Amino acid sequence: MKPPVINFSTLQAAVEVAATLAFALSGLLAGARKQLDAVGLCVVAGLSAFGGGTLRDVLLDRRPFFWVEHADWLWALLALSLGAMLFLRRRHLALTERAIQWPDALGLGLFTANGSLLALDMGMPAIVAVLMGVITAVFGGVLRDIVCNEIPAAFHDHRPYALCSFVGAWVLVAAVQLQAPQWAAISASAATAVLLRGLALWTGWMLPVWRINRR
Amino acid sequence: MKPPVINFSTLQAAVEVAATLAFALSGLLAGARKQLDAVGLCVVAGLSAFGGGTLRDVLLDRRPFFWVEHADWLWALLALSLGAMLFLRRRHLALTERAIQWPDALGLGLFTANGSLLALDMGMPAIVAVLMGVITAVFGGVLRDIVCNEIPAAFHDHRPYALCSFVGAWVLVAAVQLQAPQWAAISASAATAVLLRGLALWTGWMLPVWRINRR
Amino acid sequence: MKPPVINFSTLQAAVEVAATLAFALSGLLAGARKQLDAVGLCVVAGLSAFGGGTLRDVLLDRRPFFWVEHADWLWALLALSLGAMLFLRRRHLALTERAIQWPDALGLGLFTANGSLLALDMGMPAIVAVLMGVITAVFGGVLRDIVCNEIPAAFHDHRPYALCSFVGAWVLVAAVQLQAPQWAAISASAATAVLLRGLALWTGWMLPVWRINRR
Repeated sequence: MKPPVINFSTLQAAVEVAATLAFALSGLLAGARKQLDAVGLCVVAGLSAFGGGTLRDVLLDRRPFFWVEHADWLWALLALSLGAMLFLRRRHLALTERAIQWPDALGLGLFTANGSLLALDMGMPAIVAVLMGVITAVFGGVLRDIVCNEIPAAFHDHRPYALCSFVGAWVLVAAVQLQAPQWAAISASAATAVLLRGLALWTGWMLPVWRINRR
Repeated sequence: MKPPVINFSTLQAAVEVAATLAFALSGLLAGARKQLDAVGLCVVAGLSAFGGGTLRDVLLDRRPFFWVEHADWLWALLALSLGAMLFLRRRHLALTERAIQWPDALGLGLFTANGSLLALDMGMPAIVAVLMGVITAVFGGVLRDIVCNEIPAAFHDHRPYALCSFVGAWVLVAAVQLQAPQWAAISASAATAVLLRGLALWTGWMLPVWRINRR
Repeated sequence: MKPPVINFSTLQAAVEVAATLAFALSGLLAGARKQLDAVGLCVVAGLSAFGGGTLRDVLLDRRPFFWVEHADWLWALLALSLGAMLFLRRRHLALTERAIQWPDALGLGLFTANGSLLALDMGMPAIVAVLMGVITAVFGGVLRDIVCNEIPAAFHDHRPYALCSFVGAWVLVAAVQLQAPQWAAISASAATAVLLRGLALWTGWMLPVWRINRR
């Protein structure tokens, strides 16, 4: 099959950069809310951005990590954290929070697709590949929240986040099963997760509450 | 030596299923108490059931994980979590909490014995094998409590739990040292831990308090 | 180059013993403050002492761990924890807290230098080696605080700790780059971190606060 006219890898790389920055910023905002110091801010930014992929690689026993192979990213993260500390003001906070929702959703989609594909390529069963996609996309934020001494938002705020990633990961598994070309599988999977997340944000859809949780 | 008349592996497998379900249910109950959403409930159920063995395998650098080799368990876990959300009512909670104490104690014993034996088979020193048994049996609950933003009950509630596992693990190491057959070593070790735990629950025995902790 | 007149390895080993004990004691004190039981105290002492190096080894995929190769240390840790529970009284607490500041600073320096050197020897890029030094020195305490259900002090108390380790690690990388002999590189790196930490403690220097954190 002919590759699409736009260069898919370049597009994917650009989206990945935007998504990783959005993840790192979400860490900075969470750290600021918790009054972390400069060191803590860098750490939660790094955990948010790379924690999910690193945990997946530890579980799959894959080396080198992304941030070892591309150590420049650690410099970028440091610069981002210090830059945010120098230039972000309180009045920027709400703005930033809204502004990162879309690149964050993109990251959710793309990391899901990449994580699942990678696990499938290593011969994992479908459900394990799906789990790895979800871990890649969601557990950076989970580690961020654990370090900030909060119950992870992904498990607690009743807004679909991991669920969007879960559905997107199944789309990838199905597309690979149907022998779709890689760019199509990644696009379909990521788009599904992004659209579901956008829909959830837009409609304010909440996960059903367990009856014994209702007050 | 002749194997016992009842088939030991079948018995062990049945006990393991009951124990894993009890561990998963303990996660669901903890998650319900913390008002987690459906995603969070599945995650804490999974961490409770498989977290200890997974952490042990990461430390021992063993692959594949149990839940990769037996991926059906992930489906079972998902079904259990959703089933509990559909069918468990508030009035069932206290009942469930009491009902899982015994399979939970069985899990404590069996996971201790299996974890220690596995580490011994990999040539670990005795004390490391004991530690791995305790991690297998106890750290699923520890990870559950960390995600639920609580001090782990195993470190804080002053009721013997990890200690029962610790003693049971030493029984396994001693039995292997004495070249007992494997089924006997596992049985003796698991039975020790289970009985100690039962005794502790029955008598309300508390761990001695450090003087500087006394209020 | 001629080795120094005093035996460097023996000196290093002695400092390491003192530092590991100081780290373990810091765990015991944190656990006592949180009213942990005997099991919890042993676990936080162990996490504080060995958690940082173990996390580094998991990330670098290195085995065996220090505490597997030197399993006697696990016995020492158990003895230390039980001994502290038997002999430490409330009036000793403040004293202990002050007394471990210096061996703790030594540990910060030495673990930084060792961790970075080890990562460099494995061919890691400079910034990754620095990160590994910081993880070795600081993340034992981070894991201790997570288990104690606190925001890690290293990220929150605004006193330079990880930063001293960070600077010390760069000294090591520079010294190795300049082909300094190993004992000189380790000494310079550790001394830098220790002196910075001492200076920070002595002057009460605080990390700059992010403007949006100021109340």
